[in-house]
Order: sequence, then C-alpha cells, then structure tokens
Amino acid sequence: MKVYLYIASSLNGCIARKDGSTNWSAEDNTSYLSFCRQIEAVVMGRNTYEEYLKLPDSDWPNPKGTTVVLSSKKILPVNNFQVHIANNGPKEAIEILQNLGKKELIVIGGNKTWTSFMKEGLGDEIILDVEPYIFGGGISLFSGSVFETNLELLERKFLSSQTVQLHYRIIK
Amino acid sequence: MKVYLYIASSLNGCIARKDGSTNWSAEDNTSYLSFCRQIEAVVMGRNTYEEYLKLPDSDWPNPKGTTVVLSSKKILPVNNFQVHIANNGPKEAIEILQNLGKKELIVIGGNKTWTSFMKEGLGDEIILDVEPYIFGGGISLFSGSVFETNLELLERKFLSSQTVQLHYRIIK
Repeated sequence: MKVYLYIASSLNGCIARKDGSTNWSAEDNTSYLSFCRQIEAVVMGRNTYEEYLKLPDSDWPNPKGTTVVLSSKKILPVNNFQVHIANNGPKEAIEILQNLGKKELIVIGGNKTWTSFMKEGLGDEIILDVEPYIFGGGISLFSGSVFETNLELLERKFLSSQTVQLHYRIIK
Repeated sequence: MKVYLYIASSLNGCIARKDGSTNWSAEDNTSYLSFCRQIEAVVMGRNTYEEYLKLPDSDWPNPKGTTVVLSSKKILPVNNFQVHIANNGPKEAIEILQNLGKKELIVIGGNKTWTSFMKEGLGDEIILDVEPYIFGGGISLFSGSVFETNLELLERKFLSSQTVQLHYRIIK
C-alpha cells in the first residue's frame, strides 16, 4: 500500500490557529482536491470527518473513491459516500483498504492522524503546501509525539504566487 | 532599521530536536554565513551566543560587523569581536545599533529571540531554509507565544538538491 500524506501549513509548521481556523484560500484547495481525486482512497481522523459532515457533498474529497475514518469511538458512517470506520488505528485502515483491493491511500488529517501514520512508519510520501502566514502558538502539523524522519525532496512547485508545494519521499 | 530573520527549520517548523541537536549540514551553512556577512549587524539571544563561544573564531557569523546579544541576565562580552549586550529586549538592540549608525540587522536566533522581534512587530523580512527532516516533538521555530503574521513570498531557491530557501516580506 502506497501511503501519501497531504498537508497545508503555515511557514512555522502550523495547520491552523489555536482555535482551529486558517487563512487557506479556495484557490489553494484546488490542488488538494485534485490530488485526493487521483488517489484510490482517503484516510482521515474523526474530527476532520465531522468537519466534512458540516459541508456540502460537493466538498467531499473523493466522491468516487473509498474513505476510511480513524476513530477510537464507535461511530457510524452517515453521509452519501463510501465510508468505512477503523477503530484500531492506521494499520486497520490499511487492512480495510487492502481487503477492498486498493493499492494507495492519501491521509488528509488532522494532526493526530498524520502523526499516527508517521510514528508507525507507514508513510511513503508527504506533500506540504507552505502558506504565507505565521501562526505563533498555533496547532502543529504533528501532535507532540517524539519521532524523527529523514526526507528526500522529489519536487517543488508554485500553487499560486504565494503558496509553495514541497513533495518529499519518506526515507525508511 | 531593516530587520531580517534568518532561520533553518525542519519541514514541520522545528529548529532542532528536543535536545537542541540538528542535522543541518556545513553545506547549508554557507548560505547562512554569506547572508550574515552581507548585513551590517547580527542580533542573537544569550543561549545562541554561548553556543558560539564554544566554537572557533572562524565560525563567528560576522567577524567584521557588530553583534548585539539579547540577555535578561547581566553578562559581559568575552570574545574577540565587536559585541554589545542589550538587557531590555529587541528595541534596545535596535537603539544600540542605530546609535552606531547601522541601518540593517539580521536576527539569527534562537526561537525566543525571533519570537520577541515578531511579537513586537519589528521584523521586515524572513528567510527560511527548509531542511529535509521531520523532528516530531522538536523545538518550534517560534516559542509558544500567540501572534499572527501575514507574509508575501519574495523569492525561493535551492541551496542544495535538498534544501529549499523561502524568502518573505512581513506584511505590517
């Protein structure tokens, strides 16, 4: 299973202000949605899932694909898409998708979910959109756990005049 | 007074592991030293200064320029270079340099010192070298204070095949 992590962050590695809000624009979102829709399956945490449930169906990251939601609580899928729930962390999410014949997935957040994949050594590539803001005291893109990863820069590009996308391979 | 901040960080906005160590290579250091030596004056915090005192004189960031060390403790300059001590924060450092006829300075760390300049709205440009590592649970490039800054991307370049330099104007 090839595992991508897709993250947008401020210059100082925060995915949002302390209250969860961001300044990311709809323009930046285009690259994110197009990436999600190229990949067979999406994995997200419960909080991210609950945020998506508040949005119109047209914002759903992969309408034609499969989604796995990581949740330690027992919850039920409730929207119009193909959603599975994994109660036992990233390895179970991968198993569910393998059993469905999927060969790739993209982890779209939040920070606990990205961290759980990284800590278990399950990520293969990371795509980071660096946004032109500093959120001092914001929410870090990885939660506080201690781990370390070496990366190999594969590609960088401009998403707009202000947003730089850095794409790395995770060295194992 | 034009104020630059020069920072090297991991992809997730950490300037070092929790123990203060990094993986930054001597190769990356070349751009940093050349930048410091183009600017009239350097400002650093006391911890950074004490780290420099352990190194040979050839590593000093600006041998021909002026340095101001921010320190809340009373300390005395002890090496072979032109060093002043500011006990009352970034504004005093700027005053000292203005009185010497300087028109620009570069803040080289650590994170408390960068944060104090940013919180007081004293930074004009920020240069960030993004290194190909993730330090989960590392030391953030800004200490925990809550502040927010909008940036304008001026330039980006490769320092090596692996290190990307992003250069921003701080929007006030």
